[in-house]
Amino acid sequence: MTAPDVTGADLRVSWSRLEARLDALGEIGSTGDGGSSRLALTDDDKDGRDLVVSWMRDLGLRIDIDGIGNVVGTWPADATEPPVMTGSHIDTVRTGGRYDGNLGVLAGIEAIETVITSGVELAHPLAVGFFTNEEGSRFAPDMFGSLVYVGGLPLEEALDTVAVDGAVAGDELERIGYVGPMPSPARPPRAFVELHIEQGPVLEAEGDTIGAVTGVQGISWQELTVTGQSNHAGTTPMSMRHDPSFAAASITTFVRRLATEIGAPQVATVGRMELHPNLVNVVPARATLTVDLRNTDEAILQEAEARLVAHCEELADDEGVTIERRQLARFEPVVFDPEMIDRVERIAADHGHRVRRMPSGAGHDAQMLARVCPTAMIFTPSIDGISHNPAERTAPADLEAGANVLLATLCELAGARS
Amino acid sequence: MTAPDVTGADLRVSWSRLEARLDALGEIGSTGDGGSSRLALTDDDKDGRDLVVSWMRDLGLRIDIDGIGNVVGTWPADATEPPVMTGSHIDTVRTGGRYDGNLGVLAGIEAIETVITSGVELAHPLAVGFFTNEEGSRFAPDMFGSLVYVGGLPLEEALDTVAVDGAVAGDELERIGYVGPMPSPARPPRAFVELHIEQGPVLEAEGDTIGAVTGVQGISWQELTVTGQSNHAGTTPMSMRHDPSFAAASITTFVRRLATEIGAPQVATVGRMELHPNLVNVVPARATLTVDLRNTDEAILQEAEARLVAHCEELADDEGVTIERRQLARFEPVVFDPEMIDRVERIAADHGHRVRRMPSGAGHDAQMLARVCPTAMIFTPSIDGISHNPAERTAPADLEAGANVLLATLCELAGARS
Repeated sequence: MTAPDVTGADLRVSWSRLEARLDALGEIGSTGDGGSSRLALTDDDKDGRDLVVSWMRDLGLRIDIDGIGNVVGTWPADATEPPVMTGSHIDTVRTGGRYDGNLGVLAGIEAIETVITSGVELAHPLAVGFFTNEEGSRFAPDMFGSLVYVGGLPLEEALDTVAVDGAVAGDELERIGYVGPMPSPARPPRAFVELHIEQGPVLEAEGDTIGAVTGVQGISWQELTVTGQSNHAGTTPMSMRHDPSFAAASITTFVRRLATEIGAPQVATVGRMELHPNLVNVVPARATLTVDLRNTDEAILQEAEARLVAHCEELADDEGVTIERRQLARFEPVVFDPEMIDRVERIAADHGHRVRRMPSGAGHDAQMLARVCPTAMIFTPSIDGISHNPAERTAPADLEAGANVLLATLCELAGARS
Repeated sequence: MTAPDVTGADLRVSWSRLEARLDALGEIGSTGDGGSSRLALTDDDKDGRDLVVSWMRDLGLRIDIDGIGNVVGTWPADATEPPVMTGSHIDTVRTGGRYDGNLGVLAGIEAIETVITSGVELAHPLAVGFFTNEEGSRFAPDMFGSLVYVGGLPLEEALDTVAVDGAVAGDELERIGYVGPMPSPARPPRAFVELHIEQGPVLEAEGDTIGAVTGVQGISWQELTVTGQSNHAGTTPMSMRHDPSFAAASITTFVRRLATEIGAPQVATVGRMELHPNLVNVVPARATLTVDLRNTDEAILQEAEARLVAHCEELADDEGVTIERRQLARFEPVVFDPEMIDRVERIAADHGHRVRRMPSGAGHDAQMLARVCPTAMIFTPSIDGISHNPAERTAPADLEAGANVLLATLCELAGARS
């Protein structure tokens, strides 16, 4: 067999093929306004999985599925040594865009297809995977698929997770047919690289095309349940109230002040709130809200958490309510492998792109893989910084650039002749 | 026919009969914890109406129903002159108690039954009614039944009202079979007296048994819709946020400050709030909340409304969001007829009760009737001031005392021999 005339560094993806797959996957669970809604382990998630697995099979990849529904396609199919791996997730938030997660999975498939059709020889196998429940919109904690994959969470514990709609993760996995025999934790890959949209405004604002991601912010998710005294809104003097609605609002304005006082990159968000019974003329009996705190510095993140606790304790005393706290998710900040970061930065520059070293404000499966192998991430710009929104967009040229940097990085890591 | 030996002032209700009816009505839409849930024009409301109408028919009252489903039972059935009227409502909030509204209707039936069985002769007819959608938990504005009854709202407008669940009032009335031919507005009664639980803590705290109600607080209900920019909770710097959740919380803490600064009897409540999409890791696109403001002084209530508007405008500018305001209900404070208030106070004292002149913090159908005839209200104490809650309770002796004061007031107004 004759060695081909191309090298790993010369390879370029087919943008039209990648774009067609992004569009086809985006149609599943389409929200009709350019976005998609494929909450983890729903029927729409199953349909998305089936489509992506069909593309993997068409390429001749070996499909491995583990007990939490993570799916890995490996090439060559008979590979036995640990692969250079890429991938991301295909679940979305309820009002998700077309690229968050999907880009990393489909660009990975595209990279492998490009390698296969080019005939480039690699020293090590390649793999592309998608991990279950990255978003955490249906099951907490988010990213439990990749967390199980690296041994950070027992499989049984993840399977017992109850969704916001009351369903149990294990039951839902059985229902959609994505329980497989691959052991958890999985054998660590040789290296892991994830391509993802930035989901923030920095690359666009700075005029950069590629982000070489240095690490991931630490994340603290808490659910707070405030219990007070439901009563008539007209006849209860203000001084006699024990009002969960007021307490929830006080917490919400407090975390805004907290993040502002601590300063960037600290962020704080109350994204979910429910009052019960939720009627105009009734002081609520109960309020439930979530607080999302993030920072790249673990010590400062802990300080933010401690100040939130102190505020809640003081507020509970003042208002005569009880406030229960439940940790939904907690991840320390992650720092990626310096050699991997340098590699992404160099390859992006070699491709002629403006490249920026930057932390990730969002959580990603790569932060779990970083526990078990050298890991890197490649960011592409998000127009107006918008994501988790049907209006999420990235310029096609930027998506193509990101896919080509991923392809070149995988080829280099897998020892392609170059 | 021989005139009976009893007089109007001597009559006493049958507490056991009244209690049995309160219990029977409370079982319809029972929440299983002592409370009831019969939102206006639901199947449970229909069942409650059917039961109460059956009791009216058993007494031989003439049943008149108008186009908005208000039901009036008149005795004698062939009466033509305006009656002395009592009544209240039998719809509840979603988590309602057993006495709010029900007491006034069933004590009215009990009073008429007591008069009928005693043989006391009256100079004027008596009537007892229940008005549609007093609570306003399903349709805004609240009290639209009595408002239509007195000509304060065109019937057609009330029929077009859309429920929080999307149903249309007119359709629901047809569905449950409570559209009748009595004209709207109705012919004003000779006088109107409503017995009701206080729904507040004052009578119990002061050791009084009967409240002679002087009037009703003015009520302003607004729905505020905040529209901002949905985005990723991890990657959007605090300085770039346009966050409806924060804005809604700021409004909620503002109205608490507002009510505290203005001082009693000003009250302010945010009882309903919804975020969209309501996910832990997404800055919401939209928040909807309601603000309930009440005061006995119209000028101060208007000041509170104006300060809320000013806060919303400033907040919208600062946060870069839009805030739409929609008035759900607005009633000016009502002052009851002084002679009627004196009459209730005197009769309660004659019955040996400690009686207190006091305003009502809650809205009541009586405030609508006060537009067209001399009107009064009688309050009985609420244990711990709790209402709009399954734990709503009034001591049986207090309920019986209130029913007897109602009976005596009706007899005196109707010209019973005494």
